Amino acid sequence: MHTLQVDVGHSRYPISIGAGLLSNPSWLGAQVPAGDLMIVTNTTVAQLYLPTLIASLPGRRIGECILPDGEQHKTLQTAGLVFDALVGKKLNRDAVVVALGGGVVGDIAGFVAACYQRGVGYVQIPTTLLAQVDSSVGGKTGVNHSGGKNLIGAFYQPLSVIADTDSLATLPDRELASGLAEVIKYGCVWDPLLFDWLDVNIPALLARDAEALTYAIARSCEIKAIVVAKDERERDLRAILNFGHTFGHAIEVATAYQSFLHGEAVALGMLMAADLSRRLGLIDGSLLEQIRAILTRAGLPTAAPRIGATRALELMHMDKKVQGGTLRLVLLEKLGHAVVTGKYSSDALDATLAEFLN
Amino acid sequence: MHTLQVDVGHSRYPISIGAGLLSNPSWLGAQVPAGDLMIVTNTTVAQLYLPTLIASLPGRRIGECILPDGEQHKTLQTAGLVFDALVGKKLNRDAVVVALGGGVVGDIAGFVAACYQRGVGYVQIPTTLLAQVDSSVGGKTGVNHSGGKNLIGAFYQPLSVIADTDSLATLPDRELASGLAEVIKYGCVWDPLLFDWLDVNIPALLARDAEALTYAIARSCEIKAIVVAKDERERDLRAILNFGHTFGHAIEVATAYQSFLHGEAVALGMLMAADLSRRLGLIDGSLLEQIRAILTRAGLPTAAPRIGATRALELMHMDKKVQGGTLRLVLLEKLGHAVVTGKYSSDALDATLAEFLN
Repeated sequence: MHTLQVDVGHSRYPISIGAGLLSNPSWLGAQVPAGDLMIVTNTTVAQLYLPTLIASLPGRRIGECILPDGEQHKTLQTAGLVFDALVGKKLNRDAVVVALGGGVVGDIAGFVAACYQRGVGYVQIPTTLLAQVDSSVGGKTGVNHSGGKNLIGAFYQPLSVIADTDSLATLPDRELASGLAEVIKYGCVWDPLLFDWLDVNIPALLARDAEALTYAIARSCEIKAIVVAKDERERDLRAILNFGHTFGHAIEVATAYQSFLHGEAVALGMLMAADLSRRLGLIDGSLLEQIRAILTRAGLPTAAPRIGATRALELMHMDKKVQGGTLRLVLLEKLGHAVVTGKYSSDALDATLAEFLN
Repeated sequence: MHTLQVDVGHSRYPISIGAGLLSNPSWLGAQVPAGDLMIVTNTTVAQLYLPTLIASLPGRRIGECILPDGEQHKTLQTAGLVFDALVGKKLNRDAVVVALGGGVVGDIAGFVAACYQRGVGYVQIPTTLLAQVDSSVGGKTGVNHSGGKNLIGAFYQPLSVIADTDSLATLPDRELASGLAEVIKYGCVWDPLLFDWLDVNIPALLARDAEALTYAIARSCEIKAIVVAKDERERDLRAILNFGHTFGHAIEVATAYQSFLHGEAVALGMLMAADLSRRLGLIDGSLLEQIRAILTRAGLPTAAPRIGATRALELMHMDKKVQGGTLRLVLLEKLGHAVVTGKYSSDALDATLAEFLN
């Protein structure tokens, strides 16, 4: 097992990563510091891991709140169901909310924990690779509004994060690859050694080797923790973690979130951002090809849908990263070093958009 | 005009108190630091003060969200209407929410501001005496759940609070008195000089004299600011501000919030807490009579409804102030000094309950 401490804002909490954590009652019991618990999960994850989790927490008063599965349920109404469950069980300020599931479950449960009685503790047990490497750190919680994603939420830190690599055994291949896209991102924007390590270890990760997964998750969380600790509220540095996301988000919206998983869209977005970086002379063609190759080996798409350059540009301008009319993009200067800038040739951007999307 | 600075948590904001603030564009403009505003108010207050407020904020892009009036609308559903208004107007993180109204409007608008895009600024313009002396300081925002009051919320500080004493001109007499109950409370638990000042100035306050109101509001906010600054999250000291509230809350619940305004129930509760303090030998009978007299002069009730001692005790035990089965009460040791304790003779408590409620 690997443990790392995250220091952010005024909170400090541990992330524990390894195999068999959920089925280890003596260890798990010490991580969940309350007698009264509300486990929030979804229909899919409940079938797979809820009995194990409950069996590992003997002697607690446990409520269960099983939400429908899917991003379309990440709404204020669904958060209302979790509030109902907490009130129905008469849980007080000492209770702890336990989020068991992927990013959607974690985002909703964290938001409810932030607001119930103006804040109760919560423990995050992410069961997808994407949630383990991405939402474990940063404290972003929230729900969607029909007018946009994550428009309602809070910055709220968990008491503890528990990433059991065994829970990845049942994860569909595409979802595993989608999580790997974010790991590759950390290599691109921060850590050339992680990128090189991935180059060697992609096969082990795809085979769900516990040791390789533990390293990939731990290093990703470490990097995110460093970045977030320096910039909790996303004023500046934290924006580099959006590498590939502005292009990727346009692809997700244009395809109505139906064609690509989040990580798949990010993979396409990273490739486009790297392509633009090359056109601007920031990096050379060999790094672009290295990135294309690693995404391919991870089972991620490298051919974007033909949504049209004009439509993409329109969607990118609606993104939160637009400041005073200027579209700021995350570009690579070299492997392991990203910059956030609004200063780039729009001809180069047009060329990248045309090559991938027309 | 009187201005005081509140320092709490990591926020610092001004409370401005005086006559004519809302109808002073040059002054008001400087207090509301944003081009995009969403004014949240209710049907009653909108008719009285919304046109004045809008006229005093020229050159802004202003959205209006007019909620139904009444505590029964302080729900997550109503908060959803405010989120809809913000999204509908496409307001971004730089927008500011302006709460124009009493405690209900302030609590909902503050909660929405805390959560919209994970936090936008908000300016509070309380238009009732109760809101001016009570909810201006402390950062408690939130909505009710059918299972209990204020169960969903956030600690969130405003950018600025503007208490215009002119807005009290239209306040019904009972509501003015209800606000005075909280001012009297500050005198009881913290400031004997304020209590003495009130003894002299109750007639001026009831006549809505701007200077007297300004002093009463400013001193109340000052006291609350001192207490809250020392104890933002209500671990200990802040509980003294609940003087009269545990008894009062039982009366409110037993009468289904139909018979008494909040301040009226608190007035009865303070009298009961003072009576219990006397029975326990903490204070003498003359202070009890002083408190009864000032409440009477303020137009507040001193005769409690006959809800029954047993029922009241039951309701008091359901209160948030119960820790490990012990009902903690705020009692007076002398004028201006309160203690929070679970150590008192239950016979004395029974006698107080019987005298007032049987």
